[in-house]
Amino acid sequence: MRLNTEQIEALDNRYRALFINALNGFKSANLIATCDDRKNTNLAIFTSVFHIGSMPPLLGMISRPHSVSRHTLENILQTGHFTINHVNESIIRQSHQTSARYDKEVSEFQASGLSEQWQDGFPVPFVYESRIQLGMKLREHHQLAINNTELIIGEIIYIDIKDDVVHEDGYVDIERAGSITVSSLDSYHRTGLLCHLGYAKPEKTA
Amino acid sequence: MRLNTEQIEALDNRYRALFINALNGFKSANLIATCDDRKNTNLAIFTSVFHIGSMPPLLGMISRPHSVSRHTLENILQTGHFTINHVNESIIRQSHQTSARYDKEVSEFQASGLSEQWQDGFPVPFVYESRIQLGMKLREHHQLAINNTELIIGEIIYIDIKDDVVHEDGYVDIERAGSITVSSLDSYHRTGLLCHLGYAKPEKTA
Repeated sequence: MRLNTEQIEALDNRYRALFINALNGFKSANLIATCDDRKNTNLAIFTSVFHIGSMPPLLGMISRPHSVSRHTLENILQTGHFTINHVNESIIRQSHQTSARYDKEVSEFQASGLSEQWQDGFPVPFVYESRIQLGMKLREHHQLAINNTELIIGEIIYIDIKDDVVHEDGYVDIERAGSITVSSLDSYHRTGLLCHLGYAKPEKTA
Repeated sequence: MRLNTEQIEALDNRYRALFINALNGFKSANLIATCDDRKNTNLAIFTSVFHIGSMPPLLGMISRPHSVSRHTLENILQTGHFTINHVNESIIRQSHQTSARYDKEVSEFQASGLSEQWQDGFPVPFVYESRIQLGMKLREHHQLAINNTELIIGEIIYIDIKDDVVHEDGYVDIERAGSITVSSLDSYHRTGLLCHLGYAKPEKTA
């Protein structure tokens, strides 16, 4: 199948959403937990969390202009904090359910059956069922002129991971932690390790 | 393992790079092919390509300030175009090899053994061995003040995918196409489909 711009534009909306969303490759699956100033909580699955840097430790994510993740963004701007919680195989259905369009006053924690975990005086909740939990502080926020999506950049200021998935060299075995990956809008996959290749050097060329 | 900001800062550099790079979850694996005005080609693996929107079809990616991907960025700014090519299981080692620090005059196509594919008058090459190939036009480019990384946003203007991995509803079966996923800096994983969940609605709550 070969498509140019005119042919992509001519695709049916629903078809195009599934199709284009698959094209970047496999995605991360994270639950973003937030609350407003009155501690009303919100939970939403994001598949766009990406690495920006390790010193300082920074992650970025994209919030769509008119999607349910709007409540997430409003809360982040109010409190300056959010948490990132890996989706694992045993909570896929609950996590996916957070993508439904609930009213602002409904907490997706309750609606999905996932549990709030408040800890160490952190101002927003974590997801109890998640095995890799990151406490984030908002650092930058840009509206992308091209389509009005919002880029949110946060610094990792707190990390809670089960010890047995962290290797001696710092590698975190997220597969062993049960973390899963997403393709397109709604397809969930487990993973199987093929290889660790180490740092590539020019002399090892083909 | 629980770490706060001071403890994260105190980690050994190599340890921290492996550790922090794992925390966003699974990543996409794409070969970014570019050339300069004289058609000198460049190829680099990126694990940060993410979805920004489907209408217009937009993808973003992060280029590090002092990494090998710098040549990629220079070429994109020169020609205004690049291609994104999914890494599949049969080209993992060659793809990883493109992350070595080659001089600017060395083409990672030659160094890795992957093949240039020029087609349909597109101004930059594709990767012949890749089964999902995207022709991209540069649309926005931002330097992120926080750590000087560069955000590159491109529009998908050409798509070439094998017909047999595109479902009737538009879903692209990237697993069947052999696309793989990455954790941390250098660990490659195949995937196994668990479920397609469809569009979530509020009434299906737990």
